[in-house]
Formats: sequence, structure tokens, C-alpha cells
Amino acid sequence: MERTLFEADHHAFRDAVGQFIKRHVTPEYDRWEAEGLVDRKLWHLAGEAGFLGTAVPARYGGGDEPDFRYNAVLVEEFARSGAASLSSGFGLHNDVVAPYLLELGTEEQKSRWLPGFCSGGSVTAIAMTEPGTGSDLKAVRTTAVREGDAYLLNGTKTFITNGIHADLVIVVAKTDPSAGARGVSLLVVERGMPGFERGRKLAKAGMHAQDTAELVFNDVRVPAANLLGEEGRGFSYLMANLPQERLSISAVAVAVAQAAFDWTVRYCHDRKAFGQEIGTFQNSRFKLAEMATEIEMAQVYLDRAILELNAGTLSAVDAAKTKWWTTELMKRTADTCLQLHGGYGYMDEYPISRAWRDARIHTIFGGTTEIMKEIIGRDLGF
Amino acid sequence: MERTLFEADHHAFRDAVGQFIKRHVTPEYDRWEAEGLVDRKLWHLAGEAGFLGTAVPARYGGGDEPDFRYNAVLVEEFARSGAASLSSGFGLHNDVVAPYLLELGTEEQKSRWLPGFCSGGSVTAIAMTEPGTGSDLKAVRTTAVREGDAYLLNGTKTFITNGIHADLVIVVAKTDPSAGARGVSLLVVERGMPGFERGRKLAKAGMHAQDTAELVFNDVRVPAANLLGEEGRGFSYLMANLPQERLSISAVAVAVAQAAFDWTVRYCHDRKAFGQEIGTFQNSRFKLAEMATEIEMAQVYLDRAILELNAGTLSAVDAAKTKWWTTELMKRTADTCLQLHGGYGYMDEYPISRAWRDARIHTIFGGTTEIMKEIIGRDLGF
Amino acid sequence: MERTLFEADHHAFRDAVGQFIKRHVTPEYDRWEAEGLVDRKLWHLAGEAGFLGTAVPARYGGGDEPDFRYNAVLVEEFARSGAASLSSGFGLHNDVVAPYLLELGTEEQKSRWLPGFCSGGSVTAIAMTEPGTGSDLKAVRTTAVREGDAYLLNGTKTFITNGIHADLVIVVAKTDPSAGARGVSLLVVERGMPGFERGRKLAKAGMHAQDTAELVFNDVRVPAANLLGEEGRGFSYLMANLPQERLSISAVAVAVAQAAFDWTVRYCHDRKAFGQEIGTFQNSRFKLAEMATEIEMAQVYLDRAILELNAGTLSAVDAAKTKWWTTELMKRTADTCLQLHGGYGYMDEYPISRAWRDARIHTIFGGTTEIMKEIIGRDLGF
Amino acid sequence: MERTLFEADHHAFRDAVGQFIKRHVTPEYDRWEAEGLVDRKLWHLAGEAGFLGTAVPARYGGGDEPDFRYNAVLVEEFARSGAASLSSGFGLHNDVVAPYLLELGTEEQKSRWLPGFCSGGSVTAIAMTEPGTGSDLKAVRTTAVREGDAYLLNGTKTFITNGIHADLVIVVAKTDPSAGARGVSLLVVERGMPGFERGRKLAKAGMHAQDTAELVFNDVRVPAANLLGEEGRGFSYLMANLPQERLSISAVAVAVAQAAFDWTVRYCHDRKAFGQEIGTFQNSRFKLAEMATEIEMAQVYLDRAILELNAGTLSAVDAAKTKWWTTELMKRTADTCLQLHGGYGYMDEYPISRAWRDARIHTIFGGTTEIMKEIIGRDLGF
Repeated sequence: MERTLFEADHHAFRDAVGQFIKRHVTPEYDRWEAEGLVDRKLWHLAGEAGFLGTAVPARYGGGDEPDFRYNAVLVEEFARSGAASLSSGFGLHNDVVAPYLLELGTEEQKSRWLPGFCSGGSVTAIAMTEPGTGSDLKAVRTTAVREGDAYLLNGTKTFITNGIHADLVIVVAKTDPSAGARGVSLLVVERGMPGFERGRKLAKAGMHAQDTAELVFNDVRVPAANLLGEEGRGFSYLMANLPQERLSISAVAVAVAQAAFDWTVRYCHDRKAFGQEIGTFQNSRFKLAEMATEIEMAQVYLDRAILELNAGTLSAVDAAKTKWWTTELMKRTADTCLQLHGGYGYMDEYPISRAWRDARIHTIFGGTTEIMKEIIGRDLGF
Repeated sequence: MERTLFEADHHAFRDAVGQFIKRHVTPEYDRWEAEGLVDRKLWHLAGEAGFLGTAVPARYGGGDEPDFRYNAVLVEEFARSGAASLSSGFGLHNDVVAPYLLELGTEEQKSRWLPGFCSGGSVTAIAMTEPGTGSDLKAVRTTAVREGDAYLLNGTKTFITNGIHADLVIVVAKTDPSAGARGVSLLVVERGMPGFERGRKLAKAGMHAQDTAELVFNDVRVPAANLLGEEGRGFSYLMANLPQERLSISAVAVAVAQAAFDWTVRYCHDRKAFGQEIGTFQNSRFKLAEMATEIEMAQVYLDRAILELNAGTLSAVDAAKTKWWTTELMKRTADTCLQLHGGYGYMDEYPISRAWRDARIHTIFGGTTEIMKEIIGRDLGF
Repeated sequence: MERTLFEADHHAFRDAVGQFIKRHVTPEYDRWEAEGLVDRKLWHLAGEAGFLGTAVPARYGGGDEPDFRYNAVLVEEFARSGAASLSSGFGLHNDVVAPYLLELGTEEQKSRWLPGFCSGGSVTAIAMTEPGTGSDLKAVRTTAVREGDAYLLNGTKTFITNGIHADLVIVVAKTDPSAGARGVSLLVVERGMPGFERGRKLAKAGMHAQDTAELVFNDVRVPAANLLGEEGRGFSYLMANLPQERLSISAVAVAVAQAAFDWTVRYCHDRKAFGQEIGTFQNSRFKLAEMATEIEMAQVYLDRAILELNAGTLSAVDAAKTKWWTTELMKRTADTCLQLHGGYGYMDEYPISRAWRDARIHTIFGGTTEIMKEIIGRDLGF
Repeated sequence: MERTLFEADHHAFRDAVGQFIKRHVTPEYDRWEAEGLVDRKLWHLAGEAGFLGTAVPARYGGGDEPDFRYNAVLVEEFARSGAASLSSGFGLHNDVVAPYLLELGTEEQKSRWLPGFCSGGSVTAIAMTEPGTGSDLKAVRTTAVREGDAYLLNGTKTFITNGIHADLVIVVAKTDPSAGARGVSLLVVERGMPGFERGRKLAKAGMHAQDTAELVFNDVRVPAANLLGEEGRGFSYLMANLPQERLSISAVAVAVAQAAFDWTVRYCHDRKAFGQEIGTFQNSRFKLAEMATEIEMAQVYLDRAILELNAGTLSAVDAAKTKWWTTELMKRTADTCLQLHGGYGYMDEYPISRAWRDARIHTIFGGTTEIMKEIIGRDLGF
């Protein structure tokens, strides 16, 4: 079925992103994978190109276009080009962090932070997970104790996307450790604040160009002016923003699945075995038919979810459905496509090798498949 | 997500169907299952209620509403009530046979056949499959040899839905056995024509109230006036009508899956084990969450396909995608739901027992899952 | 791989069972399926043939051969012949009930009950499950209150295999409702005891020749002489005997899977589509190859488990592993084989239709797949 | 169930291998992974330790023990330690190459080659696959044209395990290109022969310490004395040796699956979420139970196959069954275990991250899962 989600402006935006990737990303990407992060310059280029903060009002330098379809186009194009690490890094900035700043930021905060956000001068991150806490946000052990006009922040965060490049990090901390979920607040830590240190850049199974890192906060004095939203409401802010994060990941998931499928269809035409195109073996043909079906179903469902998000009607439960199903699809599609490439699928000269490794984290980050099923199951009353 | 396919008129129609089922179907259904077919009277009642030939022009007694959503509502409601045999019997009549008569029938034929079609006076069937030919329509061995103003029809057909009740059967026969697919024609055989006999009513694993049968044609003289469309074009007519048949089956599939899921959610609330509602065991909760997700995805995709069908843009490939995925979903949902009922799931006092048996044929009839994958795979060029 | 479990005597026994089935079972089986139970006479014939109580000492009329391989042969042969209902009925008698009588019975009890057990004069059953309790044996609500030299038994049991034919039923009841698992005892109820009534014979999705029933006990005075083992130790007796029951079901499961596979290989050779044997389509060939592999693996594992059982070293955990994996294999093999038969697979004239329906209960009775995974998971310390 | 395959001598051998790994492998392995191959010295150390050529007669410096169980122990221990690259490299040498030299080598050849084979002075490889031929050995395009007392060898091979370290390579070439499978011969090429060049060391998704490479042969003059076996019989030699290669891979597969499972059980005990050990969540417990079952089944089946191999009775079909099932198990076990680790599973600090990447090639090399199913399916007559 033809995809009906986009209109002319989105197609134009997609073309621009495609040109950008061709010029600035593809020629460098292997090097970034080897080095474990992208050049800092890429963020500035993306800012210049108007890809950062599409939803941010024009007065702060943004695209003034609060239509999630632009966000989707951006991460999809990176994903399609085989640069899933960038989908993750830019998706985190645009799709996850932006809403916090826009919805919770005071005018002063927005004036201070959003121009850099949009220009690429200020790369952002959000620090939720801690060593050992995983999906359990209520178990956060980082503390922020009020001292005069500042909070004294202590703790360690891990698995932080954009962790090395980040200039501005939203940190989830307990301002009232005795209050459980109601004691959680969000503080914005900025590069250069004394006591804020990068820990290790984490060696991972894939997503090598993504600078995932540990962050360490030792007695960091965070000005009270950097409190985001109200004290004690951090947990509900997190819950409110998860659906958009999950759709962003889903957009990547379907785009990667589609790209992997497209590469594989081409490979199955080009490559012959026992005298015939390998795609003509019935087993291969059936696997391809199964993937064609499921990717299209996922796309139709995701596109519907994106429209609901734009309309403000997407429930957390439907975001959870979208997230787990599309990312599991991504994972199994990458796996099937690799197998259809035979030995070549395991070799880095074919993009499926990297896509397969990159895919694997998507059923985990942004809320594991298991957590998504919990959300859905509880909504059924169980 | 809320289903957006239907409008007020469809909802009203659904209510009417629901009332009809409550009054005329549910109280009798166990008996029909035991007897192997519904009372003939049910067809008359359905005709009176306006459920037969919704797409047929008013001048022939039909509903004058060529909107497939009405067709979908009808089969969905039977399916939801646990009467999948009726979804199949009425679906065959309305969704499969009607288009042949409407699109290929001459004015004379339509005047002759459609009033009975709409009143329930004339139950219809279509006879494609033969013992041993399965999905391979080109291998049909039934022959129709022209003799004067009639065709002499000889052959045996099997797996004929509505086979016992049928008054009017579209028979796929070779009028030119040497011409392969181009030698296939469609002839309408009517009850009472000499040489037309019902074979055995077939004992099946499920769908017990559906009168599936063999039909035998021994030197049946079918008037040339009963040729449907042009001689030799039968195969292309069949191909053209398969998408609508497949959507009809898909509508049943999703409706049964949804019903099975709803029964099971209720059961998992009502039943306790080891002191807690059985749906609160994490494994059960996850299974329910998986089904909730996949049924909703299937529904969204099917509904999109129904709109494409209405718009005349549904491709055979997309119908194939819809058919195999929704029916496999139906099968595995019924199986999972049965298991969640424990021993009770295997007992006929719970509707899941019958639904599980009924579901099993849906990945086979109307084109097996394997044939659907062939269609999709070939469209990829393999 | 060749099966190495059996020796010459077992092969001879298998031949005898095969002859018996050919003569006494196959000609009548369709009728029994329609009637919902076997002729009572079959039990006498089985007794005469020496198939009942193979493990019972000769002095009580038994086979004097405490080698489970004979038990396995018996249920396997019924299963292979398409008579899974008999595997279940006779398996329950020989493999499940016999050990209770042999291990727990006093000399007086054994003298009283075992001759009938072995002759077929006394069909046995065991009544654990109650309406609403499912797998949770500690939740049993049937009570047996000591009154003088008898127990007053009250309660209802359901899903009782051999429920209609049973002359002698081991009933699980609470003799001390306040003592939880330690208040459970086993009482032998005999046909004709006042207050012991058969409830409904249960209509099921399959296993139609198996007389599964409800049993009702209204103030049944069960003589204290019919207490099996010690009062209050019933729960531990049940736990001790479950592994053998589970192996018995596993033997049926693998035998049915193998039979279904064999029928299907033959069908895939005999039937042609699009001009070739349907088994030569790669998708079919791969499905057959997968089944061939998994059935053989299951057989090798089961046979090892049978040897461990004979040696007294089979753990409850390993029995659980065997049970869930072989029965899930049975279920999915039956399903795949049905699909490979196309429309014919759904028709009762092919044995796969019945085998598919019969298979479905095996992942539920004798302990559901979910309970088996609990047992295994807890053994890992979770 | 307890594993019964091994006797005291095998256990002692296993201990020795374990000590070797602890001392010589574990401390260096991360570096080898980063560098893309092991130190050449490791081969000498393995030779000294008696791990190379266990099946080679003592007169050539071997272990004189033609019992495959020693081979299995060696690759299992490497696999268990997380060094799957070594299982592959040493397995290729011991389990795949050794039989060719032992069974086909003349006395002169054996005297020339086996001492180096056993000492580690001569690392071996076998070159079958060519760019573009994949599993289709009959399509080999490398040619060996007889010229006087030598063959002029031309061609390119790829995916060659031990490709960089190899001193001695068995090359599959066509000595008679017109004779199809009967024109294939085996030639031993030695390091330093003019025209024999290493191509690229291949960058892969995993197995980073394994030096997989391309090999290029440009007019290499291979002395006729290096022909292995008879001219034109190469294809049948290859067929004869595949079962042992496949068991070797299966031994790795089950050992890796077991190791991944053991790491994960430990992790699921150590790590807590929402206040409990994560293994106690029912979904995790069930996943662990499923893996425990399937790994044990695979082990029992593999061990039986190893005994059949030792007895000379292992069929190619049974080797194929073992190969596909155990490697698919390995793949899905690694995937499930990674997921159970959550975000940590994707981080290289946990061994599951590497094991997951290493596992992926095992369903491909040594004959893909699809080729295995072809072998089994054809044996059924399809």
C-alpha cells in the first residue's frame, strides 16, 4: 500500500535530509564508527541545515513546525542510510529532549538554551538510567540537595546517548529521597560545571558511532534556575514524554526494517546459487513475502500512531504497542536479512552486518519489550 | 486505538445484525452445529432483514449500497457471536458470489437470479476446487462441452461452502481443455437440473454448522443462457474477484481474534489460581498484551485495506498480505486463548473450544497462506 | 538415528498390541468417537491380552514386569493408530493409577483391587481437579470427614479421564482442611457406593472416544479401609507420581507427532499440485525437515528419560522438561501437518484432522506447559 | 540430566584445556579481538600442550587418540570461556583438516605435514568457498591445470578460517572443468609458494579474533606431490568429511548456549529490579526454563551423535539435523540471554555481548541452516 502520511513539504524536507546525508554523513560514517562518535562539526552542520529543533518556535531559532512528521522524516532518513547511530543521537535531541525544554522551560530557560539547541552549538542528553536501576525509574539514587540557590547533585548515570558530546544534560534526580516517585525532579546540568565528569565511553555490540557514556556528578552545584518544571514532578514529566520517545524509536525501527528488506531484495536478485537468483528459492521468497507484509503492517500502524501523536490523542498504551512490535520486527527482519545474505551478511562490506548489530539495542532502550508488555497488560486490568 | 472505519449507518446496521443473531441464531446454533447445517429458514429470515445482497441494486431487491463496510459488519457480527460457520456461508453469498453476478451477469440473468439472491430464496455457492486440484485452478478437470444451446457439464467439485443449501452454483469448468487458463469458463448450475447431485456433506474438524459438500455433475445440460461472462475468460474473472473474497475472510479473522481475546480477558479476570486472577500472572499478562497489540495492528491494516477496496485500489498483493497475516493471527490467537483457559478451553461449554476448531480452516480456504506468500513473493520479482 | 531403547521382548509386545488394535480397535473407533466412549468390553479384551497391569506382580494377575518401556509401547501403539483417546484412558490406568495401588496399597487392598485392575473388570481413574481449581492441588475443596470407621466424602471433581467407565476412583480430598497441603489424603471410591454419581460426560474439542466426566460425591461413606497410604500425605504421594504420568503423556506426544509426520510424508508424495509432488516445494520440504529433526530429538531425549525412570533417577524437573517440550512439539507438528494436507487436512476422512484435535489437550492435562516451566524455573532458584 | 558422554580421561583433558585457557587465552583475548587475530605463538603453545592433532598417530607427533570426544572437549572449552573464535580456528584445524590429511594423505605427505600440524608449526586451512559461489561447491571456478609434475592453480577463495595464519591450505579446485562435480580435486598449497597471496582480512560482525580472509592464487605451481587423494574425487571427499565438521560446530553451539545460559542465570540472581531478583519475574523464569530444556535436549542429542560418529555410523542427514538445530538454538539462546541482561547485554563488559555477535555466523558457515534442511528433506524423498 502506498504510504499516505506525508505531504509535499515533508517530501521536500526528506530530500534535504537525503542530500545532507549524502554529503556530510556517508563519506565519514565508517570513520565515526571506528572512532566511536561523530565529529562535533556534524551537529553544527545539522543546525545550519535546519534539522535541529524543527518543533522549536522561530524566535529561538527553531523550525516553528510542531508536526512530528518532520521528526520522523529525519530519523527515518538516517536509519535508511545505515546510520542508525545518528537516528538515535539526533532523535534523542529533537524528539526526546526538545519537548522537555519547550513544555517545562521558563521563558528565561528557553531563551538561554534553545538557540544553542537549534544551532547545534549545544548538544543535549537526558540522564535517567543508573548502574543497576534499569527500567525502574523510581529506584533512582542520584540526589539533588537544595543548598541556597543551588542543588548539590551527586550520582552516576549510565547508557547516556550523546554522553560525550552533550553540552546540556537533563538529569533525573531525587530532591526528596523519602517521597518515592514524588521526590523526583529534573535538573539541567551544563558542560563545564565543576564536578560534572564524563565516565567511560561504553563499548557496545553495535551503534558504534553513537557516543553512549557514563556521566558522573560529584557535588555539582546546579543553580536552582536550572530546575526544569516543578520540584517533585519529574516522574510525571518523564511518563508524559515517553510516548513521543517511543514513536521516535519506532520510526527508526520501521525505517531500518524497510531498508534492510530493500537491500536484501536487491541482493537476492543479484546473487545466484545453483543457477538461479537466490530469491527465487521458495524458502527465500516466502521469507521476503513475510517481511514485506509485516513491515507494511507496521508502517500503517505507526503512521496512524504518528497522526494520533500530532492530534494529542496517542495513549501511552498505544505507544507501547507500537514500540515493542516495531522494534521486535526490526530485530527479526535484520536477522532474517542477514541470513539471506549468507556468509556475506556477516561481513562489514554489506550494510546488513552493521544494521543487524545496531538493531539489537532497540528492543531494550526507550523501555524494553518486557516493560511495554507490562504497560499494555496492566491497561487490561492485570 | 479507536476504530475509525465506520460511520453512523454502519453502526445502525451492526445493531440490526446483532439483534438478528440474538433472536434467530444464538438460540439455535448448538443444534445446527450438531446437525451439520443451519435451518433453511435462516436464509429467508436474513433476506427479510435485508442482509443478503446489500450491494445489489434496489431494482433487484438489494440494499443498493456498494460499500464493503456493510459486508464486513455482517461477517464480523456472526464471527463475534461465535458463529463462524455463518460468517463463511453468508460471506460466500454476499462477498464472493454477488460480484460475479453483478459484474458479469446480463440484464436477463440479473433479473432472473438477483431477486432470489436477495430474498434468501436462492442460496448461492461457487464451485472451484476439485478432488486433488487444491489451489491450482488451471488444473480443473470439469468439462463443459457446447452442444447446441447448452453445455454438457461433467465433473466433481469438493469443499463447496453452502454445498447442501445452494440453489445456484457458479461452476468453474473447462470449455476448451486445450487452452489452459484461457479455456476456463463460468456456468451457473441451478437446483433441479438433471444430473446435478450433492455428494457427501463433509465431516470436518470444525465449522460444523457450515454445509460444506461435494457436488457431482453428470451430463448436466446447462443452458448457454447460464454462461456467466464470456467463454474462456473464467480464469481472469476468478483472479479479479479473489481480493474481495480474501478481505471478507480477513474481516472474519480479525473479528474472531478480537472476540476470542475479549472472552479470554474476561475469563482471566474471573478465574483465580493460587489466590490471584490468572491474568495477573506475568506470562498470561504478556500473552494478553501481545494479542492486544497484534489484533489492533491487524484491524488498522484491514480497515485501510477495506477503504482501498471501496476505492477500487486494493491490489491482489495487498489482499494477499491481509489474508495470510490476519488468518494466521486468528489461528494463533485462538490457540493462545484456549491455553489460557486451561482445561476449560478444551470443553465445549466455553466458546473458545469451538472458535479454535473453526479458526483452523481460515489459513487454508480462500487461498492458503502458502499461496498468499507466493503471490507476494512473485510481486517482488521472484 | 535408530531408536535404541527397546529389546526383543518389547518388540514382541509391540506386535501383540498392534494386532490387538487392528482387530479390536480400528474397526470400532469411529463409532466410539461418535458415541463419546469405548465399549466397556474393550477393557476386558485388553485385560485378557495382558495389557493391563504389566507392572503388577503375577500373584495379582499382572504382567510382573516393572519396566516402563512396556507401558510406553502400549500408549505409543494406540497413539500411532490414531486412537489417542485410548492412549489416555489406558495410560491413566496403567501408568498413573497402578503406581498408587502398588506403592501405597496394603496387602489387603492389593488383593482386593489388583485382580480386577489386571483383568479389565475394574477400570480406574484418579480424581484431582475440581471445578475452578485447575493446577492448584492445594486448593482442593472436596472434604473427607472421619466418622467412625468411614470417611464422609463430599465434593465435585471434573475433567476425570475414564470418568464414565471407572469402577474405582482414587479421590483427592481434604481430611484436614486446616492443614493445607498436609491435610490432603487419597481415598478409593468404588462403583455403587451410595452418593457417588457421575456428572455430565464432557463435550470436548477432541479426544471424543475418551469418557471424560464430572464426578459428584454427596455424603459418600468411604470405609477407612479404602484410605490409600497414610492420612495427610496425599499431596506428597501426588508429587511423587507425577513424573511417571508426565512421561506417559510424553510417550503419546512423540508417537502422535511421529505418526502425523509419517502420514504427511506419504500425503506429500501422493498428492501433486502444479505438476509436482507437494513435498517437493521447498517450503514443504523444509517444514518436513524441521519436523523430522525435532521429532527425532524429542525421541532421543524421551528415551533417555524413560531409562532414567526405570533406574529411579528421573527428577521431577527433567520429567517437566520432557512433558512440555514433547507436547508442544506434538501440537505444532499436528498443526503443520494439517496445513500441509491443505483442505483435506480439515476433513475427517484424513487422520490428521482428528489427531490435530486430540493433540490440543496434551499441553494442558497432566500439568500445563506453564506449570512445567514453573517447576523448571524454580529449580534454577527463581 | 547428567551428561554421560565422558570418562575420566576426557575430564582430565578438559581440565588441562581449562588451565591452558586461563593462562594463555583469557588474559590476551580482548587484545586479539581488537587486533583481529590471535598471536601466532598461541598455536605453538597449543601444540606443546598436546591439543593439536589429538587424532593423529603418535609417530607423527599426534595424540594417537581417534576419539572425537577429545575434539569436542577442546572446542567446548574455548567456547565456554567466551573465545568462540578459537573454537572455530582450532576446530577447523583438528576436526576438519586433520581427517583429510589422515585419510587421504600418502605416507610421504603425512610425514611431511603432520609433525608441523601437531606442533603448531603449521597452521592449516581449507579453501572451498569462492566469491559468489556460497554453498554451491560444484560451481567452483578455481582451476588447477596439470603442467608436467605440477598443477597451475588460479582462483580466489573467500571466508577462509585461519586465512592469515595458515601455512598449509587444502584448496578445492577444478582439475577438469568439463566434468562437473567429478572434475574437482584437492591440492595442498603451502606458505611461500609463489603466486599464493593473502587477500584482505575480512571485517566481520563478530568472531573478531578469528583471522578470516580471502586467499588469492595467481599461477601458483603446486607440485603434483601435493595432490590430496585422487584427482577428480575431491567432491566426494568433501561430502564424506562434512558430518564431522558439522558436529564440531554443533559442539561449539551447545557449549556457547550453555555458557550464555549459565552467565544469565547468574546475572538474573545478582541483578534486582523493582525490588526482586530479575529472574523471579515469571516471564524471565519461563525464558530461562525454556532455554534449560532446549539446551539439555540439544546436548543429549549431540552426545548421541558424537557416539555415532565415533562408531562410524553417523549419517550425513543426522549430522545435518544436529547442525541446524544446535546452531539455531545457539543463536536464539544468545539473543534471549542478551535481552535478559537489559542494556548491559549490549555492553562489551558483559560476555553475552560478544557471544551474541559470535553466535550469528554459526547458522551460516559449515553449511547454512537452509542447506541442512535441503539435505534432510531430500532424504525424505523430496
